[in-house]
Amino acid sequence: MGPHAAPFDRPEYDRRLVAAREAMARAGIDLLFVTDPSNQNWLTGYDGWSFYVHQGVILPMEGAPVWWGRLQDTAGAQRTVWMGEDRILGYDDHYVQSTTRHPMQDLAARLIGMGQGGGRIGVEMDNYYYSAKAHAVLETALPQATLIDATALVNWCRLVKSAPEIAMMRRAARISETIARLAIELAEPGLRKNDLVGEVMRAAMRGVGEDWGDYAAIVPLMPSGADASAPHLTWNGEEMKRGEATFFELSGCVRRYHAPLCRTVHLGQPPAEMVSASEALCEGLEAGLDAARPGNTAQDIAAALHAPLKRIGIHRPNRCGYPVGLSYPPDWGERTASLRKGDLTVLEPGMTFHFMPGIWMEGWGLETTETILIREAGPAETLCDLDRKLFVKP
Amino acid sequence: MGPHAAPFDRPEYDRRLVAAREAMARAGIDLLFVTDPSNQNWLTGYDGWSFYVHQGVILPMEGAPVWWGRLQDTAGAQRTVWMGEDRILGYDDHYVQSTTRHPMQDLAARLIGMGQGGGRIGVEMDNYYYSAKAHAVLETALPQATLIDATALVNWCRLVKSAPEIAMMRRAARISETIARLAIELAEPGLRKNDLVGEVMRAAMRGVGEDWGDYAAIVPLMPSGADASAPHLTWNGEEMKRGEATFFELSGCVRRYHAPLCRTVHLGQPPAEMVSASEALCEGLEAGLDAARPGNTAQDIAAALHAPLKRIGIHRPNRCGYPVGLSYPPDWGERTASLRKGDLTVLEPGMTFHFMPGIWMEGWGLETTETILIREAGPAETLCDLDRKLFVKP
Repeated sequence: MGPHAAPFDRPEYDRRLVAAREAMARAGIDLLFVTDPSNQNWLTGYDGWSFYVHQGVILPMEGAPVWWGRLQDTAGAQRTVWMGEDRILGYDDHYVQSTTRHPMQDLAARLIGMGQGGGRIGVEMDNYYYSAKAHAVLETALPQATLIDATALVNWCRLVKSAPEIAMMRRAARISETIARLAIELAEPGLRKNDLVGEVMRAAMRGVGEDWGDYAAIVPLMPSGADASAPHLTWNGEEMKRGEATFFELSGCVRRYHAPLCRTVHLGQPPAEMVSASEALCEGLEAGLDAARPGNTAQDIAAALHAPLKRIGIHRPNRCGYPVGLSYPPDWGERTASLRKGDLTVLEPGMTFHFMPGIWMEGWGLETTETILIREAGPAETLCDLDRKLFVKP
Repeated sequence: MGPHAAPFDRPEYDRRLVAAREAMARAGIDLLFVTDPSNQNWLTGYDGWSFYVHQGVILPMEGAPVWWGRLQDTAGAQRTVWMGEDRILGYDDHYVQSTTRHPMQDLAARLIGMGQGGGRIGVEMDNYYYSAKAHAVLETALPQATLIDATALVNWCRLVKSAPEIAMMRRAARISETIARLAIELAEPGLRKNDLVGEVMRAAMRGVGEDWGDYAAIVPLMPSGADASAPHLTWNGEEMKRGEATFFELSGCVRRYHAPLCRTVHLGQPPAEMVSASEALCEGLEAGLDAARPGNTAQDIAAALHAPLKRIGIHRPNRCGYPVGLSYPPDWGERTASLRKGDLTVLEPGMTFHFMPGIWMEGWGLETTETILIREAGPAETLCDLDRKLFVKP
């Protein structure tokens, strides 16, 4: 196996195919077309920054999956997927970002050529990067087929992680701890935010020991002061200031597996409301970890978290977490269950979540989070090892 | 203006609105809904890593645009867009990645409430991140409207850059040069690829002088040896080896503006075929730059490039470039014109392209590229200043 070869052995991929096909059978789908880059990787190992053009994995009920994409990217497929070259198909370059042709015309012709142009074909209607146009073209070009919405069908199969997947996430967690510690250590008044991001990224790429760092599916989010009232600002060239909190939302990444971790640093004495919010948040996290055990539901975690926050008057209607693992930009979440009221997903051993209760207030924000693993019994395990508190520096 | 405020003045945004509305009028569109993050930023300044959920910009024919997205991200909108708070709309968190609700139901209700639920509404059918599901829900929820495909309508408006945009790209080009030089300087046998990426990312974030680095829309691509036969592999933890070429595909980024640049380094004496390919490539680049002048067409650049390559037997059917400027993951190209045979786009002063003739051969690859600006007269200007050759190190 070369350096880019699929990171798991065949039994692991076989397990995944079985799970996906069981889900297809339940949904009455004869053939599945998967565009979500993380689902493509999960099924085949395909890894490359080529998801900005149309590509996907064809999963029939029998036989190996087929990777289909731009002709020049078949070279990358040959170097990353576990299937043989006969299961890799490329379309001509004149389909790329053309105003007159569409790659889905090629896909339809391939499926018809494979005798798979009819029946019930599952497509990921609301997954990245399946566009409205791709769907319209495919529908026209496959008049014998019925296209079925299979959004998140594979994602749901990914919810319970295998032992090799958990091992990969533990390796990512070592990097997450390292870079979060570094950010906390370096934070000081006068340091430009972009310079801090640079140090964090360098450390994330260096990785830990043999585990080289891969790019995370989300860039570091690290807003300061009033900017931290917004959850998704990235950074700028401003200097860190005394009297401001900065949260760090970061993840290490090993072979596309993530273990996100957030901590907040306040430079100088933090205001009382931030201190009490942090204390309630940490109490809520502890309660949430305790509720995160097999047999309980996703909403139980949210309820446990929210109780101590509510006591100090913080109403937090947003979801407080989502499953994590294998991912590509633009999101490291898996987009299935959500830790929120009304989500009755039953927790099972091997599920992993980013338990992510950000608090975004008027004029400031606070994030203290954990990537958690549901165990066979008892409270969830946190994959990262880092003090859970508001960090205060002079 | 705060540190995150929209980077251009009002006349620049006014110019953009006029251009977009002229294009809408030509297409017979009454109202445009824009989901491409780069188009959202171009029209409003919105900047945040929130494009993993449904969001967009509503552009009516009259009045300021409206930014619409997840409620918690309206805080980020307030800090980044040039419009007032009354032009920022947020949907409830229970729409996010729900299996029972869809954010487009909220959008439809808003449009109807604004008296804009009928008529001809343009949607970006094949732009990021407008999913097949989003389209289906919107179509159902707006029975009085006709949804019109407005793919790349705004992108085409962006093709000719204004003076402030070109200035921003020149600033990005200083970072591109700096990080490409650093990669070439550091490359040596025994250096792990991920460690090299870490150094490059750190320098990219540090930026040049006052210009702090932003994240590029594509991570560094730097495959070595046989991996360089594939255009879109990223990196791994392998050490660089004598006898192998590595190409660096990189871009600096300033306020979301890019100036991509690729160079190739061979460690040790390069094989004769690579040397002659590089010479032909550089000759083709020079010829292409000369052809890249106002009045010529996009395909003229491709023809000029390909002639010397053809003479040494390299057939390169793929496009050799695309417009660049403002962008977000997953692509720094603008997805309009392509530098390839058959593209009759007439070149105009102020257009900027990544002139990108990668050569991906059996067992090796080579990339030497330039970000170019079409001038008032004469050959195109290269925005970066770095020797154009195959770099050879011991």
